Formats: sequence, structure tokens, C-alpha cells
Amino acid sequence: MEELLSFLNSIHPLNKDTRNFLISKLQFVEISKKSFLLKEGKVCREIYFVSKGLLRCFYIKHDKEISSWFMREGDVIISVESFFKQTESKEQIQALEDSSLYYISYDEMQFAFANFSDFNTIGRILTEKYYVLSEQRLYSLRMRRASERYLFLLNHFPQILLRVPLKYIASYLGITEETLSRIRSMKY
Amino acid sequence: MEELLSFLNSIHPLNKDTRNFLISKLQFVEISKKSFLLKEGKVCREIYFVSKGLLRCFYIKHDKEISSWFMREGDVIISVESFFKQTESKEQIQALEDSSLYYISYDEMQFAFANFSDFNTIGRILTEKYYVLSEQRLYSLRMRRASERYLFLLNHFPQILLRVPLKYIASYLGITEETLSRIRSMKY
Repeated sequence: MEELLSFLNSIHPLNKDTRNFLISKLQFVEISKKSFLLKEGKVCREIYFVSKGLLRCFYIKHDKEISSWFMREGDVIISVESFFKQTESKEQIQALEDSSLYYISYDEMQFAFANFSDFNTIGRILTEKYYVLSEQRLYSLRMRRASERYLFLLNHFPQILLRVPLKYIASYLGITEETLSRIRSMKY
Repeated sequence: MEELLSFLNSIHPLNKDTRNFLISKLQFVEISKKSFLLKEGKVCREIYFVSKGLLRCFYIKHDKEISSWFMREGDVIISVESFFKQTESKEQIQALEDSSLYYISYDEMQFAFANFSDFNTIGRILTEKYYVLSEQRLYSLRMRRASERYLFLLNHFPQILLRVPLKYIASYLGITEETLSRIRSMKY
């Protein structure tokens, strides 16, 4: 748990009360490869921190799975709209490797926001960070060709390319595995 | 200015100190139709609140303009990545109608975050709201056909369809004006 507290403290200094609250509420879970953290139609009621492992977020479109993002050590995971609005999720979250996570519930997080101003600051800064990533993905989808999106992954998220099976990378890029293989065989 | 303060207060009660700080720092600007709030390559150094008017965010792609979103009364405007990271903007922001806006600078906002915990809470909640909208647009781009994206606009943002010229709506949907006309002529 110390790694998570250090991570939060590196964003903004954690008060002792906030730290103690988190220690008393944080839970730990280990899930095996292929098991689900969230299924479509369920409400995302927890916010997770990846201590170890790799997971993917995806949608089902006409019986096909469309990957929307990949989360690994140090990442915070929610289904964004489902968590913030406490509504049914349109997406699913599944482990791609055996994974270990810490989590607290939506209600506990709201309690922390209402009672600990340092936690509020941390929440704001983390939300800004993930909002920027979301906007980068929107830009990528609107403006870049698949080969350019692949290069962006290669330059900014090489760990993801190394660990995520190609079929999921292909569906994230919106192309077939064959096209992805062709792009990968090019020399840059 | 009272409308903006009421808007912030409706998100989370504003302390008197925060209110006075904002009153002392907020500036007002009127810009005419077609003028720019932000140009590509410039750093987005202000955060704006639309008091009156309508604006669009767009990118240039191979000499074509691709609209990314439209902002009207009650909306907060930044170029997300440029503002939060204080880096050069890839997008532009232009008025589609004569518009009136309030704004403060990035540094003033950071000062308010560092000194007023209520402002931090408001910033977090607003960022969550716009993060959800960004994720909805990502979902729309990945999962919906142009006609479905049009219907989503019609159902959730009818004001935008009424006020934004069709050529910008078409580029937002990623289709030609002709295809948009065909979609609009269908009966739903």
C-alpha cells in the first residue's frame, strides 16, 4: 500500500488524517488473467490503482471487441462516465495479466473529497491528467492515420506495445491484425 | 459577473475570500464573430466562461478544418492539453457569433487552487464534468455511425444544432455537408 500512498503524496502532500483514512478504507484484490473488474451494464462503484499487472478497457460493437485503452502499474482505473455519474457502464474492464489492485468505493472517495482538502487537490490534478490523455486520444482518432497512431503508441507508451496482445492493439487502432502487422514491418 | 459567480456557487458554495479574489481578477472581453480566442501554436494561458455567444474549437488537417466541439453560454473553455500543460496548442478557438466572456489566467487559477479549498472542489467537479463529455465523444467516434452521432447531438445538444452552421456540424461528425443533409432529411 505504501507505493500508492507515495504516489498520491508525490502529486500533493498527504495530511496524516487523509493518510489514515485511506489506510483504513483501501482494500486489496488480486485477479487472474482474463477475469473482469467491470462488466457492461454494471455500475462502476470502485476506483482502482494498479499495483501490478495489466488490464484493458473495451466495448462490444456488433459482437466485436473494441479496445479503448490499457492500464498498467501506477495507473488509476475507472469507467469514467459510469463512475462519475454512477450509471450503468457501456464498457468492460478485463485483466490481460494476473493483476493486483488497491481500491476504494465511490462513496468513500466522496467522503474523502468532502472532508480532506488535500485529497481534493490530488483528485483534481489526477482528473486533469486523465482528461488530457482522453483529449489526446480524441485528437489521435480525428487527426491521425492508423500508422501515425501506432507510432504515437510506440513513442509514448512502448510498455503497452510490448505487453498487450496484438489483436487488442489492432482494435484500439481501429484496424485489422493484418494491417497492424504491415505497419509494424515498416522501417521508421 | 454575478452569473459566473452563481454558476460556481451552484457547483460548491463559494467562500467570501474566494469570491473576492475572483471579483478582483476576473476580466471581461467581447469578441466579434469570426475572431479568434486561440490560434494554433500559441499557449492557452486563460480559462474562459461564456457569458453570451457561441464558439467552436477546431483543428486544421490537410488544409481542412475539423471541428472538435462547440461552446455556448454557461460553458467553460480551454484548449485542454495546452492549458493544463502550458504547451503550444494544436487546436484553435474561434467565435461563431459575437461573444462575451469572463476569464482568468492560468497563474491566477493556480493561485486560487493553492489558496482556496472551495475553489479546488469546484475545479475538480468541473474537470470531472468535462472529462465525462470528452469520453462520451471518444465513445461516439469509436462506436457510432455518423447518423447515430447526429441523433445524439439532436437529443442532447439541440441548441448546438440550431445555432452552428451546417458545414461545422458536418466536419464535427466527420462527414460531408451532402451526407449531413441526407441524414437530416430522414424521418426519425
